[in-house]
Amino acid sequence: MTALLASNSYGKSAVRMVKLERRGQRHDIRDLTVDIALEGEFEDAHTVGDNSMVLPTDTMKNTVYAKARERSLGEPEEFARLLGEHFLAASKSASLARVRVAEHGWRRLDIGGRPHDHSFQRGSSERRVAHVTSRRQEEPTIIAGIEELIVLKSAQSAFAGYAKDRYTTLRETADRILATSISTYWRYADGATSFGVLWESVRRTLLGTFAEHDSRSVQHTLYAMADAVLETSAEVEEISIAMPNKHHLLVDLAPFGLENPNEIFVPTDEPFGLIEATVTRDRSRQVEGERRIR
Amino acid sequence: MTALLASNSYGKSAVRMVKLERRGQRHDIRDLTVDIALEGEFEDAHTVGDNSMVLPTDTMKNTVYAKARERSLGEPEEFARLLGEHFLAASKSASLARVRVAEHGWRRLDIGGRPHDHSFQRGSSERRVAHVTSRRQEEPTIIAGIEELIVLKSAQSAFAGYAKDRYTTLRETADRILATSISTYWRYADGATSFGVLWESVRRTLLGTFAEHDSRSVQHTLYAMADAVLETSAEVEEISIAMPNKHHLLVDLAPFGLENPNEIFVPTDEPFGLIEATVTRDRSRQVEGERRIR
Amino acid sequence: MTALLASNSYGKSAVRMVKLERRGQRHDIRDLTVDIALEGEFEDAHTVGDNSMVLPTDTMKNTVYAKARERSLGEPEEFARLLGEHFLAASKSASLARVRVAEHGWRRLDIGGRPHDHSFQRGSSERRVAHVTSRRQEEPTIIAGIEELIVLKSAQSAFAGYAKDRYTTLRETADRILATSISTYWRYADGATSFGVLWESVRRTLLGTFAEHDSRSVQHTLYAMADAVLETSAEVEEISIAMPNKHHLLVDLAPFGLENPNEIFVPTDEPFGLIEATVTRDRSRQVEGERRIR
Amino acid sequence: MTALLASNSYGKSAVRMVKLERRGQRHDIRDLTVDIALEGEFEDAHTVGDNSMVLPTDTMKNTVYAKARERSLGEPEEFARLLGEHFLAASKSASLARVRVAEHGWRRLDIGGRPHDHSFQRGSSERRVAHVTSRRQEEPTIIAGIEELIVLKSAQSAFAGYAKDRYTTLRETADRILATSISTYWRYADGATSFGVLWESVRRTLLGTFAEHDSRSVQHTLYAMADAVLETSAEVEEISIAMPNKHHLLVDLAPFGLENPNEIFVPTDEPFGLIEATVTRDRSRQVEGERRIR
Repeated sequence: MTALLASNSYGKSAVRMVKLERRGQRHDIRDLTVDIALEGEFEDAHTVGDNSMVLPTDTMKNTVYAKARERSLGEPEEFARLLGEHFLAASKSASLARVRVAEHGWRRLDIGGRPHDHSFQRGSSERRVAHVTSRRQEEPTIIAGIEELIVLKSAQSAFAGYAKDRYTTLRETADRILATSISTYWRYADGATSFGVLWESVRRTLLGTFAEHDSRSVQHTLYAMADAVLETSAEVEEISIAMPNKHHLLVDLAPFGLENPNEIFVPTDEPFGLIEATVTRDRSRQVEGERRIR
Repeated sequence: MTALLASNSYGKSAVRMVKLERRGQRHDIRDLTVDIALEGEFEDAHTVGDNSMVLPTDTMKNTVYAKARERSLGEPEEFARLLGEHFLAASKSASLARVRVAEHGWRRLDIGGRPHDHSFQRGSSERRVAHVTSRRQEEPTIIAGIEELIVLKSAQSAFAGYAKDRYTTLRETADRILATSISTYWRYADGATSFGVLWESVRRTLLGTFAEHDSRSVQHTLYAMADAVLETSAEVEEISIAMPNKHHLLVDLAPFGLENPNEIFVPTDEPFGLIEATVTRDRSRQVEGERRIR
Repeated sequence: MTALLASNSYGKSAVRMVKLERRGQRHDIRDLTVDIALEGEFEDAHTVGDNSMVLPTDTMKNTVYAKARERSLGEPEEFARLLGEHFLAASKSASLARVRVAEHGWRRLDIGGRPHDHSFQRGSSERRVAHVTSRRQEEPTIIAGIEELIVLKSAQSAFAGYAKDRYTTLRETADRILATSISTYWRYADGATSFGVLWESVRRTLLGTFAEHDSRSVQHTLYAMADAVLETSAEVEEISIAMPNKHHLLVDLAPFGLENPNEIFVPTDEPFGLIEATVTRDRSRQVEGERRIR
Repeated sequence: MTALLASNSYGKSAVRMVKLERRGQRHDIRDLTVDIALEGEFEDAHTVGDNSMVLPTDTMKNTVYAKARERSLGEPEEFARLLGEHFLAASKSASLARVRVAEHGWRRLDIGGRPHDHSFQRGSSERRVAHVTSRRQEEPTIIAGIEELIVLKSAQSAFAGYAKDRYTTLRETADRILATSISTYWRYADGATSFGVLWESVRRTLLGTFAEHDSRSVQHTLYAMADAVLETSAEVEEISIAMPNKHHLLVDLAPFGLENPNEIFVPTDEPFGLIEATVTRDRSRQVEGERRIR
């Protein structure tokens, strides 16, 4: 038998960092989770335990903190790209570096009707993410995204006309709650730079379409959201969206002599529908393989 | 030996409910988790398996949904009180009913610069809670509270002058990040009614004091917050606050030839300091025993 | 207004520690989570920010590690008692120290049919816990317990003959799955010493009774378990048990032309019944107030 | 612009099921989580909201329960394959069905020295998983695996001789705790059938190698484990293993005048090293793309 190392990856995940940015009395909080992974010629580490080409993951962690201190973070995409380039330089054996930066939101407190200089409340579960894949002698692939953006619409959502078989008991509805936790990743064309403005624009388009769409299914709305992003953001080459259907079940109140005109629901966690699609301008490249580190 | 049933309690926890409130095109989302517990003369259920006095917890769940449909929810305190009274009436053997209602926040989406009629984003982890304890022939005890309100201040927080012993390595600081997840419960005097206004006022006082306080320790700020609530809200008899110290550790960048002037921190989950106190106008009654159902 | 500090507590929670105990080639893993809380005369820390009597929670953490190194851990109750005594000595202002030690299980791997010297698999979620409350000039209160011991019985469990009202839809059953996550705490009489043997004995009694009991309700089985512990362990003065009913719902297969003779179930997390009771030899003391730190 | 639906997938995740298998008085518990996803010609559902080819995910859930009742479950791989075939038959538009079955362990209780007929304790977090990908007119791809198998070795683990740069502070060690949560997936050659025996054999080989290996790094041990599986199980074509390094940090006790000869550790959750590799007999096919549904 000849065992072959078909692929390998190593790195540090869940590096947590808060950077305090001061402009006089006014503070900003940057709260990041960074994941790093390297791929390349690490065969001897695996087969004979030779660590001489292995930059420790502890060093990766230290580097995140040092780089964050040495310069301004900028946008998550920029910090991820900087780290990716650094690790390719730091590790001769690495042919590819993936860096994921997730930013967690803090909202400035309003105190006495005014935004406070240095006090904040943690925001929702929503995270802004950037995934940068750096290769030697190539432009990095830059993917931006949003994770755990939990939204709900209580009108303009139907589900009917679907296929039925002997195991179908679901009733058609012209009016249901549509709730989901949006995870989405989009790939930028080479040369995109205004990452903050672009991200805000994509997010606004996604939410606007979610809210305004006359939904016949999760698929229908998901596609409309992706299509609108490609329509409005020329820098976006491709977008993947995953939307679990966080079912809100209508409670049967008939045993108690009550109607339930779409008013009382049980939100459920399990099971959940899961709808995913990738929409592109160009079939030749795929966002999928680039996006995961953890 | 004589085994005695010293205390007993049973009920339903984690009853999840979303109620959709419609005013024409405009919808509101009420997202609640309800916990119910009864105490009383249920000895025979325990000792001989006689269930004749046991109202099933499944019935409790059904009741939550039916009552939510039969009338408007009102404030969490009101819905909790209504349920408590119902269960005392429904169960002859119960001498006491505890109902906890937690409300989860959804923020209306802004679409095209205007609040959308029927689309929402899930808010932060913060929950508004009400605990009502109902007893026969007595006014119910009404406790309001906030859970998982995660806040951070990046200035006006010191910790110095503390006791030291041979196991002390902590360094004194005049400037640190103070981050915590506030859980607080306060008891209203009998006759309090404007629960929504009162809750907003207490929350505003807590956050205002947290932000503005020149903190020498978590204890110092916690007490100032409690004291301010008693000062500004005459209807509050007593308040308990728990504030875990969500430590943000300063990263040592000296090995890399860098200073770290309170700029780069590692937020940590474990271990955490935990500071708790109850502040009262009146030592004769305690909030503690009333507040838990789960 | 005179605000009074009615009660206060501070300490360190979630101190994680693994101690490796070696006997020649053979290793044992002790995996503990320790929580510490002090109560006492800390009023000035709260009211005027005077920290001179505050032993930092960071020092508490250090002390756990140092004490674990200085001597053998022994049983969780012993380590908790040792720490409690230490903190009363270390903090003049403390009148009471609560220490909770939770031990997480690792099972030795069987390799080639033999127990391996130094390789282990993490066990289930079950934790052995000890809560010791130390006061000056008093014997400490020692409470032992078990948390998250998840068990299920698929026969000898019924629920019928219960109270019904207009909101009752539950059907009586002579045969259901009974699944729960046992959390239990018991208080020892002064002078109890063989904590390891006692704990194993109580656990065995609890599980034996759970398995063999002909259950008419969760209350019925819970009480039988508590009663059996008091019967078999003379050192146990009192025991509290909490058993959530982790409902397993029978799936309705009738729409598919199938019967479901108690064979196919949906296990659910929410909502859950929650049954709690304390059974004692002696009503004069209660376990309740002693058991919580976090 | 022409937006193209590059890929799409939909299905039901987290379908929870417990099946009670009776042989006379003796019961067995099968506790499964099933995830299902279909891919194929669902373009009109996305682009114009035509649901006529969409089999509802609710129907998928029902089908899991009905199929589990209609016949014996067999091995997870068999149940997954059965479901995959069913869904290709049930959905004309689907070209591919992915089914993931995860089985959760329950251990039979020992009562009075004998295995009890119908009482069980929940096992560890470890899950046995099967991923089957079914395509029309093709043999299905069958992948088996293990998730969250948490193991630790306290000897025969070193990490030294690694690359160093200016951000490296880690100290070399010849003796450390190696703890990880193994997730592994392996692909069977067409025609493999004895899935239960094979799974046990692979698991035994993985654990035996983990325990006995003289580890120079996580990579080194991970590869040895994969290599041993390919060596001992001819039916396994390829195996992927992911092993997070669950760091156990040596506590610095020097400030307290104590040595720490690899005895007192802090187990940490964040950050963690993450090591992944795929080892194959044959580079032409890759396990990676097949394994995920959620």
